[in-house]
Amino acid sequence: MLEELKKEVYEANMQLPRLDLVTFTWGNVSGIDREKGLFVIKPSGVDYKDLKPSDMVVVNLEGNVVEGEMNPSSDTPTHTYLYNHFPNIGGITHTHSPWAVSFAAAKMDIPAVSTTHADTFFGDIPTAPALSDEEIEEAYELNTGKVIVKEFKRRGLDPDAVPAVLVSQHGPFSWGTTPEKSVYNAKVLEVTAETSYHALQLTRDEIHAPQYLLNKHYYRKHGANAYYGQENAKSKEHANRK
Amino acid sequence: MLEELKKEVYEANMQLPRLDLVTFTWGNVSGIDREKGLFVIKPSGVDYKDLKPSDMVVVNLEGNVVEGEMNPSSDTPTHTYLYNHFPNIGGITHTHSPWAVSFAAAKMDIPAVSTTHADTFFGDIPTAPALSDEEIEEAYELNTGKVIVKEFKRRGLDPDAVPAVLVSQHGPFSWGTTPEKSVYNAKVLEVTAETSYHALQLTRDEIHAPQYLLNKHYYRKHGANAYYGQENAKSKEHANRK
Amino acid sequence: MLEELKKEVYEANMQLPRLDLVTFTWGNVSGIDREKGLFVIKPSGVDYKDLKPSDMVVVNLEGNVVEGEMNPSSDTPTHTYLYNHFPNIGGITHTHSPWAVSFAAAKMDIPAVSTTHADTFFGDIPTAPALSDEEIEEAYELNTGKVIVKEFKRRGLDPDAVPAVLVSQHGPFSWGTTPEKSVYNAKVLEVTAETSYHALQLTRDEIHAPQYLLNKHYYRKHGANAYYGQENAKSKEHANRK
Amino acid sequence: MLEELKKEVYEANMQLPRLDLVTFTWGNVSGIDREKGLFVIKPSGVDYKDLKPSDMVVVNLEGNVVEGEMNPSSDTPTHTYLYNHFPNIGGITHTHSPWAVSFAAAKMDIPAVSTTHADTFFGDIPTAPALSDEEIEEAYELNTGKVIVKEFKRRGLDPDAVPAVLVSQHGPFSWGTTPEKSVYNAKVLEVTAETSYHALQLTRDEIHAPQYLLNKHYYRKHGANAYYGQENAKSKEHANRK
Repeated sequence: MLEELKKEVYEANMQLPRLDLVTFTWGNVSGIDREKGLFVIKPSGVDYKDLKPSDMVVVNLEGNVVEGEMNPSSDTPTHTYLYNHFPNIGGITHTHSPWAVSFAAAKMDIPAVSTTHADTFFGDIPTAPALSDEEIEEAYELNTGKVIVKEFKRRGLDPDAVPAVLVSQHGPFSWGTTPEKSVYNAKVLEVTAETSYHALQLTRDEIHAPQYLLNKHYYRKHGANAYYGQENAKSKEHANRK
Repeated sequence: MLEELKKEVYEANMQLPRLDLVTFTWGNVSGIDREKGLFVIKPSGVDYKDLKPSDMVVVNLEGNVVEGEMNPSSDTPTHTYLYNHFPNIGGITHTHSPWAVSFAAAKMDIPAVSTTHADTFFGDIPTAPALSDEEIEEAYELNTGKVIVKEFKRRGLDPDAVPAVLVSQHGPFSWGTTPEKSVYNAKVLEVTAETSYHALQLTRDEIHAPQYLLNKHYYRKHGANAYYGQENAKSKEHANRK
Repeated sequence: MLEELKKEVYEANMQLPRLDLVTFTWGNVSGIDREKGLFVIKPSGVDYKDLKPSDMVVVNLEGNVVEGEMNPSSDTPTHTYLYNHFPNIGGITHTHSPWAVSFAAAKMDIPAVSTTHADTFFGDIPTAPALSDEEIEEAYELNTGKVIVKEFKRRGLDPDAVPAVLVSQHGPFSWGTTPEKSVYNAKVLEVTAETSYHALQLTRDEIHAPQYLLNKHYYRKHGANAYYGQENAKSKEHANRK
Repeated sequence: MLEELKKEVYEANMQLPRLDLVTFTWGNVSGIDREKGLFVIKPSGVDYKDLKPSDMVVVNLEGNVVEGEMNPSSDTPTHTYLYNHFPNIGGITHTHSPWAVSFAAAKMDIPAVSTTHADTFFGDIPTAPALSDEEIEEAYELNTGKVIVKEFKRRGLDPDAVPAVLVSQHGPFSWGTTPEKSVYNAKVLEVTAETSYHALQLTRDEIHAPQYLLNKHYYRKHGANAYYGQENAKSKEHANRK
């Protein structure tokens, strides 16, 4: 069942230690088959060195396990909620990467201060509020999904243009059109958190990059007029501009 | 004598350089056989690349070497005292890991600011006071054990729920039910020290995570209702909750 | 066409991940054949592990691709402009290395605070102003080259003696007499940014090194009286001075 | 000539990249044969990957090359002066390791804030003043040796108990009874600089460790009553103390 997707999700999970995004087992990636309405996720607490594609657990959009001998990630209800409310996403990554967690602990957004950030995220990476005592008691992981979606609505953010969030006092979730892209976004988030941290220590001046620079870098890589890379129609045209 | 335990303690010691927790020989792990009342510890000042399971030294709970050709770690009296006063612990790790030492040098507790911390430590990691001149002169390593136990009593802390401490101006000791778990706790301590440091630089607001979040994350992984990982009875049940 | 140069530029590009200067594909190196008026540059958005010498794209000094099946780096117009205005340079490197980007985000020069800096850069590494909305809209990458050249003129800087720049909110460009040397300068820039950052956090005192020390270190390695290394005529003479 | 010492100095130099103490060629180690009055030093500007034991250059205590086809390190006059004035040292290491350079750039001593520091250095690691314009012009590297020796005299420091120094705006020199020990001390210096930096950012309280703690840790490892490691007479005795 979903053997191709299991392999893809397995490979995306294995990228986490290679990209220095996890300590021990503190991270998980999932990927969804939208047609079948099923997603595949890493089992809970399994060492990356022992992980196999066949260990991946299949879950439906009600959050029930439909295949797999192992328990899925304890964060499964968060993934479920995000797949149900962000209709274009194909993969989700959760880590405890240290620079991202530092901003989450300080309850600060990661400000868009450079083109490194703007190439991937269209504006600041928001930090969703901490859950209340009641939200935690009732259904912690499900409500984690709810505060994320609620925060995106409150700010009027498009999850396809800002494909990550920090949850206060917890850590980052990122997503993308594929599991692999959600891991990519998790890495960019960590790198831009590191850079923003150091820029904030260097100066107390306002350091947000202006919107027109953010636009430029975001749309160099995304949308109909993108010209970065080998697959965008505008690349050749751009290359030959003086 | 205690060949299995020697191998286990050897393997736990070898994790220290792999987890980037030691420079040169600056760390040691021990493990105890509670039935026999004997513990096994790394020899003093031996390079990790030269270490063999048979080099491990066997010590009794009076702190006397009962087997082994090498001198045990100079910190042996600290280990002895902790085994005598923390009855549930099965292994102890001491390192000079740099983020932990930074907090020890500043004589500050490592504040519980995120779920990364709360997953392992139930509250702040305390920093025990510096030893006095007399305590150092009299019996330095033994008195290091004493200030740790005294500080846990003074604060009413449970060493099983807060399995680590910093000694002021010195560094971290961590413990666990096994030698391997004490190393795991030493790594979590280092990671959470790094994160807390950066969060403290980002904001001067109070950044302790609320107690109910600390409770939630600690009890997701510990105790009768734990549901993280593959071995907790509640995992399957949790996985199928909506 | 230009097979030797392609290989040289390929090798210089492959140094970027080895020297920890790039994440993913975020960097590019080019090299020029001044006689032919053609330069060779990395294709856009190609993974370093998939890169081959034959992928390198040949571009003329009007910025038009003259050979190569792939799209050249999206930063090609910046390289073109720099080759046209800095007549002695033979190679250019662009990265998003994190310490350099931190200074660029804070819009601060990297101050010359130590001999590590002075050995390579004759004075502070300047940060060019951010581009205006109009400059970005009109021709972003070309205008990036223009603000760099304009800033060097405004400050009266010699690009051969200060072989790097930061572009505000963006990142570093470095150059040298060869592609390899431009990569070397990119690494020195990153190291000196890291050191300067920490020195600035340690003290708010003025910490620029004095001009005579900067002179000494720069001219130990550059120009007619250089005596560092094996190829400078003065080395032997210096070695035997008391 | 001095084949054993050349090999020893070669091996000590090769430790520098392994211990992450050098970028490119920015470091050198020498070792002395006191009986013959000759020392062996790394050639100037040679890549570590190309270095061979036979490349090492033999220099006498007047600073003249007496054997070797390559130019010795440009810092040779500093080494010569230190060997002439610190009679017990057998090896010298110079690097541009980044934490040490940060303190040198800020012209601050590395404060003794923890036992990690005290195990190797008996008190703060001093920063010698910057050289004057005249001192640099006259004989830069020789005068670098002179400001070091002068600073130790001015402060009444014993170079055997404080085996390292920072030169303002430049970087660290360390030494020891052997070349290998001078490299060890260079690494400890870098680690303690990192830790002290972070402790200084965490608190503005006075954070020097008290003298009695410094004494204890220094003398656990040095002198007649040392009991750390396998070679100290007191080790066994200590191990069996309660």
